[in-house]
Amino acid sequence: MIRIAIVGLGKIARDQHLPALAANSDYELVAVASRNAQLDGVAHYPSLSALLEDGPAIDAVSLCAPAAVRYEQAREALAAGKHVMLEKPPGATLSEVEALTRQAEMAGLSLFATWHSRHAQGVQPAREWLEDKRIQAVRIEWKEDVRVWHPGQAWIWEPGGMGVFDPGINALSIVTAILPRPFFLKEATLQVPGNCQTPVAAQLAFVDSAGVPIAADFDFLQTGPQTWDIHVDTDGGRLTLSKGGSELYLDGQLSHQGPDREYAGLYARFAELVAQNRSDVDVAPLRHVADAFLYGRRETVAEFHE
Amino acid sequence: MIRIAIVGLGKIARDQHLPALAANSDYELVAVASRNAQLDGVAHYPSLSALLEDGPAIDAVSLCAPAAVRYEQAREALAAGKHVMLEKPPGATLSEVEALTRQAEMAGLSLFATWHSRHAQGVQPAREWLEDKRIQAVRIEWKEDVRVWHPGQAWIWEPGGMGVFDPGINALSIVTAILPRPFFLKEATLQVPGNCQTPVAAQLAFVDSAGVPIAADFDFLQTGPQTWDIHVDTDGGRLTLSKGGSELYLDGQLSHQGPDREYAGLYARFAELVAQNRSDVDVAPLRHVADAFLYGRRETVAEFHE
Repeated sequence: MIRIAIVGLGKIARDQHLPALAANSDYELVAVASRNAQLDGVAHYPSLSALLEDGPAIDAVSLCAPAAVRYEQAREALAAGKHVMLEKPPGATLSEVEALTRQAEMAGLSLFATWHSRHAQGVQPAREWLEDKRIQAVRIEWKEDVRVWHPGQAWIWEPGGMGVFDPGINALSIVTAILPRPFFLKEATLQVPGNCQTPVAAQLAFVDSAGVPIAADFDFLQTGPQTWDIHVDTDGGRLTLSKGGSELYLDGQLSHQGPDREYAGLYARFAELVAQNRSDVDVAPLRHVADAFLYGRRETVAEFHE
Repeated sequence: MIRIAIVGLGKIARDQHLPALAANSDYELVAVASRNAQLDGVAHYPSLSALLEDGPAIDAVSLCAPAAVRYEQAREALAAGKHVMLEKPPGATLSEVEALTRQAEMAGLSLFATWHSRHAQGVQPAREWLEDKRIQAVRIEWKEDVRVWHPGQAWIWEPGGMGVFDPGINALSIVTAILPRPFFLKEATLQVPGNCQTPVAAQLAFVDSAGVPIAADFDFLQTGPQTWDIHVDTDGGRLTLSKGGSELYLDGQLSHQGPDREYAGLYARFAELVAQNRSDVDVAPLRHVADAFLYGRRETVAEFHE
């Protein structure tokens, strides 16, 4: 039994983490640290520091607060000997994730950088199906309406908020998991509203180490039907992951779908890691985003007002 | 004896690589690949591909062309079984450097991502002096006149050219080498001219894993005296690396200086790596630059015209 605390009791914690923990008998939720929010029947502390000082004994923490404070909380938890699970993205910068990885290694603790979309129902079968195919081209379309999915989340437009890469990193977490070879950016254009720091749209042209083109089209102003699709053309036909990875189509035929078990998958994986005292920190999706900011061409577009 | 070819015979190759190779008896320069330039008495090929196909037998290549083409040349050289030395930065993106690192590992070849400033005369003694000190604060001032040092280099203002981070990454390569703990960005402001893609100035506030502040001030429009200084305040006094690391001062007293041996140091190190079939790829300086582009706040400033 892993005695765990949730840190940051916001929307993602309530919608996803609490139900996943409640359904997994490997865990006992013994405390919550959150500035304002509380949970009935669970010990509450205003901060992780207060929890570590005055709270019940815990083995692990799950960090659900925004990325800007993730490093400090993770550093503190690891220093106190706790295993740590990180919401995505694992940090505000790549360098701080690198530092945490080293700290966990030195302390012999588990650090888990989660990518929830990798646990969508179609992802694992997609990877397996692709293993013996010759991939010809990959196309990612990730188009959603920020006003519908992120109302009032002004931090998305601030430095570190990543703009359209906040959903787009989910697509990148899937393609880095299903494709057999590493890939990297050759060209990118980022559209940044005149009153924002981060892009509202982006077109990315990657290539993999065997020369296969991978195109991504991210849009945060999509009205009407919303699209979270990945298409992979191969010598054995076309694979499509749809609805954020939850539906897998092979040559147009539905092959896998099922109820959302992304966070159930994350907590099952974390329990495994803790049992083996191992870490799982793959920064590839965040590295691709940083590469796009480093290497992309910026265009200023119309101001964004919610 | 390492039979080596230079790829990309531009200013940096002529100013630094050729003299360093000529002075090192571990190497024989047997070919040059360069679109236009040639070198008297050395076999010349218009491209790396042509050299690999028709040229004399070589053991290694030193890639001196701009970062935008570095990946493709390195991939090709590794695939042909050659050891590879990369000018800085090691790639246009972090992901392509990661892919090269894996490729070299799989092939059992040496890949060396060079950071020439780390071989400046004061750097190694600075690291040793800091080892037993308690560091209190670090301040980096890297201020030069782009019109003097980079005349006509329009690529600096294009995506991937990195702007003021082109010299600034040298400072970052030194501080990542002399400081004992990893550090990461907490806040950054980048000033980008209205007609450019990359910053002409930047102010960076890092912190290390023990909470020590590290401030950097990069300016590409410095007229008058030019400054490439790093100051480290410690419980044992102040250390200053001046003139890009070539002069070391301890509490104001000159401690080390000497002739420029940066590229001599790089080629000595590469010979060691090749002899041991080992690689040395530290992406930390480039990762810090990518973090600054990802996490920095951008301000538009006056257009830059050379």
